[in-house]
Amino acid sequence: MSEPSRDILEVFDNPHPDRNYRIDTVCPEFTSLCPKTGQPDFGTLTISYIPDQHCFELKSLKLYLQQFRNHGAFYERVTNDILNDLVAVTQPRWMKLTADFTPRGGIRTTVEVEHPEPALPGSDR
Amino acid sequence: MSEPSRDILEVFDNPHPDRNYRIDTVCPEFTSLCPKTGQPDFGTLTISYIPDQHCFELKSLKLYLQQFRNHGAFYERVTNDILNDLVAVTQPRWMKLTADFTPRGGIRTTVEVEHPEPALPGSDR
Amino acid sequence: MSEPSRDILEVFDNPHPDRNYRIDTVCPEFTSLCPKTGQPDFGTLTISYIPDQHCFELKSLKLYLQQFRNHGAFYERVTNDILNDLVAVTQPRWMKLTADFTPRGGIRTTVEVEHPEPALPGSDR
Amino acid sequence: MSEPSRDILEVFDNPHPDRNYRIDTVCPEFTSLCPKTGQPDFGTLTISYIPDQHCFELKSLKLYLQQFRNHGAFYERVTNDILNDLVAVTQPRWMKLTADFTPRGGIRTTVEVEHPEPALPGSDR
Amino acid sequence: MSEPSRDILEVFDNPHPDRNYRIDTVCPEFTSLCPKTGQPDFGTLTISYIPDQHCFELKSLKLYLQQFRNHGAFYERVTNDILNDLVAVTQPRWMKLTADFTPRGGIRTTVEVEHPEPALPGSDR
Amino acid sequence: MSEPSRDILEVFDNPHPDRNYRIDTVCPEFTSLCPKTGQPDFGTLTISYIPDQHCFELKSLKLYLQQFRNHGAFYERVTNDILNDLVAVTQPRWMKLTADFTPRGGIRTTVEVEHPEPALPGSDR
Amino acid sequence: MSEPSRDILEVFDNPHPDRNYRIDTVCPEFTSLCPKTGQPDFGTLTISYIPDQHCFELKSLKLYLQQFRNHGAFYERVTNDILNDLVAVTQPRWMKLTADFTPRGGIRTTVEVEHPEPALPGSDR
Amino acid sequence: MSEPSRDILEVFDNPHPDRNYRIDTVCPEFTSLCPKTGQPDFGTLTISYIPDQHCFELKSLKLYLQQFRNHGAFYERVTNDILNDLVAVTQPRWMKLTADFTPRGGIRTTVEVEHPEPALPGSDR
Amino acid sequence: MSEPSRDILEVFDNPHPDRNYRIDTVCPEFTSLCPKTGQPDFGTLTISYIPDQHCFELKSLKLYLQQFRNHGAFYERVTNDILNDLVAVTQPRWMKLTADFTPRGGIRTTVEVEHPEPALPGSDR
Amino acid sequence: MSEPSRDILEVFDNPHPDRNYRIDTVCPEFTSLCPKTGQPDFGTLTISYIPDQHCFELKSLKLYLQQFRNHGAFYERVTNDILNDLVAVTQPRWMKLTADFTPRGGIRTTVEVEHPEPALPGSDR
Ligand SMILES: [Ca+2]
Ligand SMILES: [Ca+2]
Ligand SMILES: [Ca+2]
Ligand SMILES: [Ca+2]
Ligand SMILES: [Ca+2]
Ligand SMILES: [Ca+2]
Ligand SMILES: [Ca+2]
Ligand SMILES: [Ca+2]
Ligand SMILES: [Ca+2]
Ligand SMILES: [Ca+2]
Ligand SMILES: [Ca+2]
Ligand SMILES: [Ca+2]
Ligand SMILES: [Ca+2]
Ligand SMILES: [Ca+2]
Ligand SMILES: [Ca+2]
Ligand SMILES: [Ca+2]
Repeated sequence: MSEPSRDILEVFDNPHPDRNYRIDTVCPEFTSLCPKTGQPDFGTLTISYIPDQHCFELKSLKLYLQQFRNHGAFYERVTNDILNDLVAVTQPRWMKLTADFTPRGGIRTTVEVEHPEPALPGSDR
Repeated sequence: MSEPSRDILEVFDNPHPDRNYRIDTVCPEFTSLCPKTGQPDFGTLTISYIPDQHCFELKSLKLYLQQFRNHGAFYERVTNDILNDLVAVTQPRWMKLTADFTPRGGIRTTVEVEHPEPALPGSDR
Repeated sequence: MSEPSRDILEVFDNPHPDRNYRIDTVCPEFTSLCPKTGQPDFGTLTISYIPDQHCFELKSLKLYLQQFRNHGAFYERVTNDILNDLVAVTQPRWMKLTADFTPRGGIRTTVEVEHPEPALPGSDR
Repeated sequence: MSEPSRDILEVFDNPHPDRNYRIDTVCPEFTSLCPKTGQPDFGTLTISYIPDQHCFELKSLKLYLQQFRNHGAFYERVTNDILNDLVAVTQPRWMKLTADFTPRGGIRTTVEVEHPEPALPGSDR
Repeated sequence: MSEPSRDILEVFDNPHPDRNYRIDTVCPEFTSLCPKTGQPDFGTLTISYIPDQHCFELKSLKLYLQQFRNHGAFYERVTNDILNDLVAVTQPRWMKLTADFTPRGGIRTTVEVEHPEPALPGSDR
Repeated sequence: MSEPSRDILEVFDNPHPDRNYRIDTVCPEFTSLCPKTGQPDFGTLTISYIPDQHCFELKSLKLYLQQFRNHGAFYERVTNDILNDLVAVTQPRWMKLTADFTPRGGIRTTVEVEHPEPALPGSDR
Repeated sequence: MSEPSRDILEVFDNPHPDRNYRIDTVCPEFTSLCPKTGQPDFGTLTISYIPDQHCFELKSLKLYLQQFRNHGAFYERVTNDILNDLVAVTQPRWMKLTADFTPRGGIRTTVEVEHPEPALPGSDR
Repeated sequence: MSEPSRDILEVFDNPHPDRNYRIDTVCPEFTSLCPKTGQPDFGTLTISYIPDQHCFELKSLKLYLQQFRNHGAFYERVTNDILNDLVAVTQPRWMKLTADFTPRGGIRTTVEVEHPEPALPGSDR
Repeated sequence: MSEPSRDILEVFDNPHPDRNYRIDTVCPEFTSLCPKTGQPDFGTLTISYIPDQHCFELKSLKLYLQQFRNHGAFYERVTNDILNDLVAVTQPRWMKLTADFTPRGGIRTTVEVEHPEPALPGSDR
Repeated sequence: MSEPSRDILEVFDNPHPDRNYRIDTVCPEFTSLCPKTGQPDFGTLTISYIPDQHCFELKSLKLYLQQFRNHGAFYERVTNDILNDLVAVTQPRWMKLTADFTPRGGIRTTVEVEHPEPALPGSDR
């Protein structure tokens, strides 16, 4: 199967670009394959953003994420890569992606990435 | 069916305009039509505000929202438009509208708009 | 039926006035009448405060709130009035009252008042 | 029955005094007597602290709290007194005690005390 | 049984070291022995961190934690020691470990440690 | 205040009397007065029935139940009396009333009455 | 708007007619109009059945139920009528329809109809 | 402290002795002492019964149960004894007592006793 | 992709064939493709059975179900087919399969199949 | 490590052998080792029984179950074996053991065994 590509993502014009406002989209049906074992992984992706000129279109988002169905993906890398794709296509003022994976071996993992990156805890802002 | 109009919204005098206080109103029975497919959409609207001279009257709010029942509306636009109507009629000191739509295609979306608009995350306040 | 009066509220001496500490009291059995329709309304009141020299006595609070049982009261006004009564009688360092009313016409409302009043969101503190 | 005494509380050396870290201890089986009516009261105590040189030992904490089983205690006073005992014995860098009592007369109360005392809401920090 | 050792922990290269992002890993199957009584203790460990050059590998984390199965461990000490091991091996930009132990004697305890250590509540940041 | 009367209850013709079917109606806003103390009681009434020729009308049910607002009523008696009123007015094939009262003195009570009365547990049917 | 019609319902051949098995379909987005007030009503329909030769097709069920969006409908009648339509079209071995409507005036109602009709509680089976 | 005695239990006349109906009373504040260790035990008692000529009075039930506060009691014995006391005083047509104790040593226990005693599972009825 | 095959299912000898006992296995990560649209479907399968001479092995069950990942499957057919495969391989004394699919178009469906097939509701047993 | 033995289980005399009554004991801290992989398994055991002449003592039950901590055990076998041990030692009138294991490979399993064994579903009783 070919590599997932951001080309499938469609955008539409933000109807209120004059205002900072927030869109949260929850995708509980994300699935990919573990590159080590070939076994399926499952997770819930939550995408939050403040759009600038463009919003992503939901049906194209669904098709974009379905490209990972038979694709090998490590948790940390795929979460960063999806954020990069969504940022590249929508050029948002701010975006955060939280990926909450189901348990494996009695352990469950969540990866949270944000653009622009947040300061470290305790640092001056 | 005619366009939804803010003229149906009624206000009454804020009984304590000397004090900044907050009113939260939850409307779980919002429904409109998808402009692309004509299919019904459903959502819960939560309106929070600090009134200035006027509060909106709840029965008129219900009738105002019922105007969207057979009206085509995209999520991002209709959320911004309803906030603009409520701001125009009540002129609040602060208002936030959160619209939480039911899942479509396994994906659910929330839009949150605020007046005056909040700063971007990480910016100086 | 006569007007509700704050005279029924009893206080006792704060046993630790040297320390800022917080008391939260939840009253899920508040009921009054809608002044327009005469129909009963129901709500949960949550009173949070940092006492100064006086704390309110819980049995007198119950009797004070029962005065509203057959009394006409709009949500926004009655919430502010109850806060004012409690502030007048206890003179707290800080107090917040949250009134969470049951749904009417598919819509539910919460009113939150605070003494001294909080700054507006986004303002300098 | 004699007065509850902090002498029963045992401490052990903080194994990592070089680091500020937090310990939360939840005690859902606290019971005392109402000094007015002699009736039993029940509550959940939550103790959070950042230890300095000493941590309290859990079995001695249980025995300390059992001293209140047949002891008359007003909510506000006993919460402050228990915090004072725990502070005196462990000398923590910070401690908070939240006491959440079961409903009486349809009303339930929580008392939250902190050492050192927090600033008032809205004050400069 | 020998002492638990951090040598069993494996790391891999952070795929996006240019960005501050957060990984949360929840391990609900931690068990060790009480050094006083020899009885088993059970807890849930939650590890949150912002990686720098290295991420810990999940299977090695599972094996590392299984070393405590027949090992005597006090709550406060073992939580600090595990944080120290994870910090030593991954050298993160920030890490927090929360250990939530099951009830003993009607009392339950959570220990939360963070690297670098947080400021005390109320202190200037 | 006068005695509550079943005369206020309105019925309408069962639209499908040929079929045994079930209607469940939940009324969480029931309130009456304790005849001993004069203090308000609160409860949730659940009415389940299989109608014969008549169904009760919901607005008249609400007004019927509001007659108890300032009426003294013991739990066991009032639950039986309300069932008797509803049976007298609707003549159902079967009806059950469950009244779930809020806690008093740390104790809560539910009364469940059924027409025709059920057999005792363990008896032959 | 024209009357809702069962003609829009499509069926497909039961793939395993040799076996009694059960299908449960939950439709949380049912809405109609109150014939008295013209106000929208909302409810969740749950259809359970054991198919004989035919199963209903889900997209046609959705379109069938959308016909009620601007149609006046009393709770008891519409629930019976929808069951009759579904029985007429699929001729099931058994079917039950539960309609759970949102609260109105502080009261909520559920109607449950079954084909063939069940015996009365307590009757011989 | 003296033995708990059923003499403190008060009854009143069943207002509807002609009908089999059920009363459920939940007492979440039961506490006694472990006869082995002297440590407090806590539990929730649920009493369900079909009264014959007498109902127990709730305030006297509360005082009856408070007699166990400083009384040694094994789970299995005390649950049977309380049922026997309640049966002796109210002579019910049927009664069940469920005692749900809080965890000890990571294990929690519920005891359920019924009068008249139920048949064994699987026996002819 | 080839057809899913029951040949991948492995069994082991029931360790206690002398006793009727029940095994419930929950598989929340089932996914297949809609044969009409090619879109992924997701569901939770719950398999309950009383084994005779053989139990299915869990890892082989996981691999068996993964065969449906890229396979077109209608809800009603695939649920019956999986039951038939599991029955053929394990020859159980009794088995039930419940397949609970995620919502599509605002509607969600559960299919429940049982071997041997249950009687119709209301029929003599 | 030696085999788990039922010899560690202690019993005491049933204080009310004249009455059939039920005891439910929940043990959420059961852990054993997978005989194939050597990895720890975790589960919650629920034991329900009607005692005859003997009840099991809870502390000895805890020690009995701890024998499995470093013991290899398949789910189906160990659940049957523990039931057999408890039946052998207490000779109950009826007993059921439910073992609810945590997920492995995205699949979770419960085993339920009963003494005397129940009839098959659908068989004459
Ligand atoms: Ca702007
Ligand atoms: Ca107007
Ligand atoms: Ca002001
Ligand atoms: Ca006064
Ligand atoms: Ca001070
Ligand atoms: Ca000491
Ligand atoms: Ca330090
Ligand atoms: Ca290593
Ligand atoms: Ca960077
Ligand atoms: Ca009929
Ligand atoms: Ca047709
Ligand atoms: Ca058949
Ligand atoms: Ca009778
Ligand atoms: Ca095979
Ligand atoms: Ca057998
Ligand atoms: Ca007997």
